[in-house]
Amino acid sequence: MEYYNKLVEHYKTIANFGHLSAICGWDAAAMMPSGGNQARSEAMAQLSLHIHHLSTAPQLGEWFDRVESDSLDAMQKASLSEMQRQWRLTTVVPEDLVKAKSLAGSKCEHAWRTQRGENDWSGFCSNFEEVVNLSQQEAQIRAEQAGLTPYDAMLDIYEPGVNSAQLDELFGDLISWLPDLTQQIIEKQKSESVYTTQESYSTAQQNALGLEIMKLLNFDFEHGRLDISSHPFCGGVPQDVRITTRYDESDFVQSLMGIVHETGHARYEQGLPTAYAGLPVGEARSMGIHESQSLFFEMQLGRSDGFIHHLSPLAQKHFASNDAKVFEPSNLQNIYTRVQPGYIRVDADELTYPAHVILRYEIERDLMNGKISYKDIPELWDQKMQQYLGLSTKGNFKDGCMQDIHWTDGAFGYFPSYTLGAMYAAQFMAAMKQTVNVDEAIKSGDLNPIFTWLSDNIWSKGSSLSTEALVKQATGETLNAQHFQSHLVNRYL
Amino acid sequence: MEYYNKLVEHYKTIANFGHLSAICGWDAAAMMPSGGNQARSEAMAQLSLHIHHLSTAPQLGEWFDRVESDSLDAMQKASLSEMQRQWRLTTVVPEDLVKAKSLAGSKCEHAWRTQRGENDWSGFCSNFEEVVNLSQQEAQIRAEQAGLTPYDAMLDIYEPGVNSAQLDELFGDLISWLPDLTQQIIEKQKSESVYTTQESYSTAQQNALGLEIMKLLNFDFEHGRLDISSHPFCGGVPQDVRITTRYDESDFVQSLMGIVHETGHARYEQGLPTAYAGLPVGEARSMGIHESQSLFFEMQLGRSDGFIHHLSPLAQKHFASNDAKVFEPSNLQNIYTRVQPGYIRVDADELTYPAHVILRYEIERDLMNGKISYKDIPELWDQKMQQYLGLSTKGNFKDGCMQDIHWTDGAFGYFPSYTLGAMYAAQFMAAMKQTVNVDEAIKSGDLNPIFTWLSDNIWSKGSSLSTEALVKQATGETLNAQHFQSHLVNRYL
Repeated sequence: MEYYNKLVEHYKTIANFGHLSAICGWDAAAMMPSGGNQARSEAMAQLSLHIHHLSTAPQLGEWFDRVESDSLDAMQKASLSEMQRQWRLTTVVPEDLVKAKSLAGSKCEHAWRTQRGENDWSGFCSNFEEVVNLSQQEAQIRAEQAGLTPYDAMLDIYEPGVNSAQLDELFGDLISWLPDLTQQIIEKQKSESVYTTQESYSTAQQNALGLEIMKLLNFDFEHGRLDISSHPFCGGVPQDVRITTRYDESDFVQSLMGIVHETGHARYEQGLPTAYAGLPVGEARSMGIHESQSLFFEMQLGRSDGFIHHLSPLAQKHFASNDAKVFEPSNLQNIYTRVQPGYIRVDADELTYPAHVILRYEIERDLMNGKISYKDIPELWDQKMQQYLGLSTKGNFKDGCMQDIHWTDGAFGYFPSYTLGAMYAAQFMAAMKQTVNVDEAIKSGDLNPIFTWLSDNIWSKGSSLSTEALVKQATGETLNAQHFQSHLVNRYL
Repeated sequence: MEYYNKLVEHYKTIANFGHLSAICGWDAAAMMPSGGNQARSEAMAQLSLHIHHLSTAPQLGEWFDRVESDSLDAMQKASLSEMQRQWRLTTVVPEDLVKAKSLAGSKCEHAWRTQRGENDWSGFCSNFEEVVNLSQQEAQIRAEQAGLTPYDAMLDIYEPGVNSAQLDELFGDLISWLPDLTQQIIEKQKSESVYTTQESYSTAQQNALGLEIMKLLNFDFEHGRLDISSHPFCGGVPQDVRITTRYDESDFVQSLMGIVHETGHARYEQGLPTAYAGLPVGEARSMGIHESQSLFFEMQLGRSDGFIHHLSPLAQKHFASNDAKVFEPSNLQNIYTRVQPGYIRVDADELTYPAHVILRYEIERDLMNGKISYKDIPELWDQKMQQYLGLSTKGNFKDGCMQDIHWTDGAFGYFPSYTLGAMYAAQFMAAMKQTVNVDEAIKSGDLNPIFTWLSDNIWSKGSSLSTEALVKQATGETLNAQHFQSHLVNRYL
């Protein structure tokens, strides 16, 4: 156990610095005044460098060799395996490349914040070319180590065990029926009315309603908080989860489901195994599984009939001076299930969202594998938008290929997680319904049977199982996209 | 310049980690939910250890030897001197003793939070004995290195250049006239009435008024914020200063002057020389000079006639539903200058506060110099309270020697800073009035001439001058307690 214990201590040290990074990162987004940015950026860069040095410390290689002679139990073996996975992912890329990509990414992202508004694709390209170039180098190096294609090696950072052969099949199937289903639903919804008013919903009222919904969802306020940031996220550490939202006083709908979504992320973090806190095996399994929890909360639970029946009187109470007709269950239901193809991924509804993701997946896969150039992106984007959503983005870069932050700093391989999450969420709900009376639990307002299932099957497992094994033990089968299709058909048709 | 540059880089690295510590420390006091405490404590302990290792890095000794051959200008020499001062203070105490004191201090402080309420002196002593013992060891080691008495060596951490021979004279003089003056003023105030009501002042209203006062005081909100914590403080970093207050809805007086006080600390931090940010020479000169700025804002400026004339209509505006008579200038003036001896230092008025400090100074000096035992403290406390303030604390530990946090973790040598600050503040005001029409500036509401004087003479100097030189160049003389006495007599008699 000598070397395993050394490794445990080392990874807990890394986690302690990660804790500071998470809190100061949250602070920068939710609390910091603008004038603090430069000093904070320098402090955070110093911290990143320190964490990188700890993560690639020379003694780790020796300890990983020697730990073979320690006698470990099954959980310790899983723990070791996750340490090794993180170590391989971190050490394989030369430090010079890490630094160069980080610099190029920061520069590209910073300029993008202005260029997007100006629809300035060629200005963007002057930075983006370098980001793509360095990301392709990174993908190539990772590919050689892992024996994968370049794109699959990038995907492996976010979704260990998932590869593009699977995604081609899953996403190919999905996109084969999604555009037709979307059309059918749009036709059907033409006869449904959504009642809205020009009234405003104060930030304080929205916040109070949000907090009450978080309580209903058993968010643990002893180990977390809700604040405001321009881009909602779930940050902090499992012992102190920081979620954020933003409020639009003309629209209570977005912040509310945003809070439900982030609460899903938060409860996963709050439910991770405390016995393995600070160790890789105690962390969330993958981005896709993380998203499955936020989407379970938002889509499976939050937009269900039963939940909306709880939401309705609470909204009426908090927005007592507003027109109560807006908050009637059937109207809320219609608001929350309205389907409308649009340009912007983050504003997309449940049904059209996967089309945005598949489009990005297909482009980033071919880009990392060297089959296309970054210069081809706008045309491919326009083609696929027309094909999948019936909208053209020709010449409209800002609402097209320049809309997302992800590629600006080279996070290629991340996008599939969103739709994998939606699929896992539907599958978890289907499996849960075999042993839990979900509708009755929602109707009663005591959601604990649902949370217990999620905790037992997902949260408490951390990263002790592979994604495939996790999904199989929870649902009896590996990822099966049929559940997602059934969910969409049942809800929308 | 080779070694000077290496030192600069090294100290900026330390400052970057210090930045993270300051923000996470603020977060722990102002934002963190209680359940986050354990993980945060571990992360902060790890960070402290890392900063300690950086501050005592073996190469520093070599660099300090070799830097002698670099040719440095006057400011670089001052910068180097401050690095060496910090390095000597940090390296002289063996790491084992640092750790032991830190552990004993945490344990003592943690238990004290309960024991104080229970008036449990003997329980407190079971931890405090070890804190005193380790602090005496520390004082002895520092004394041998610095050629000072043990107490003076501790004092040197907070007040470089100040020693107990000076303090004995300054404080001895002060306490020779303070009790009589206090009695005279109490007699005089018997004929003055203070008008108060049972009304309540909402946190939101107090906060809004506080923010407006901070604007009047030119607090830079691009580089700082105001929040709530159970113990008000000024934290963060010069580029992002975090001040806190607490609100008592039955009393608007405390939070308001608390905010003015912390704004004084904040403006010193915000006004430190940016060219030396991250270097010891760019930091505040001493605890006493820091307190001089907060007390300049609170006592010299904030309780002046002119300032109260600005405060009055603002308070009436923000507390519009309350009885306006409370906020009339003469009534606010009476509220803010009411003298009343009491047990608790932090609740003390301007006049009786020094008595609390001198009592503590005399005890901690003799304790560190081995002339008394920690067991003697309650009796000495009672004697001195009777002598200086006419109150007995016999058997009342919780309102006596157990009221402060400072000694629980061994911060012996800190208390004199409070009263040194009050003396410096009075001296700065007297000097300022020779070249600035202070009353006119306050009356006009444009306080910039005052802030310009403070910036030119104090803030922008950082630690480039010794305290003595700083005070002399600002006021034409070294510390002269006569200004404080004149201030008190003029204001209160």
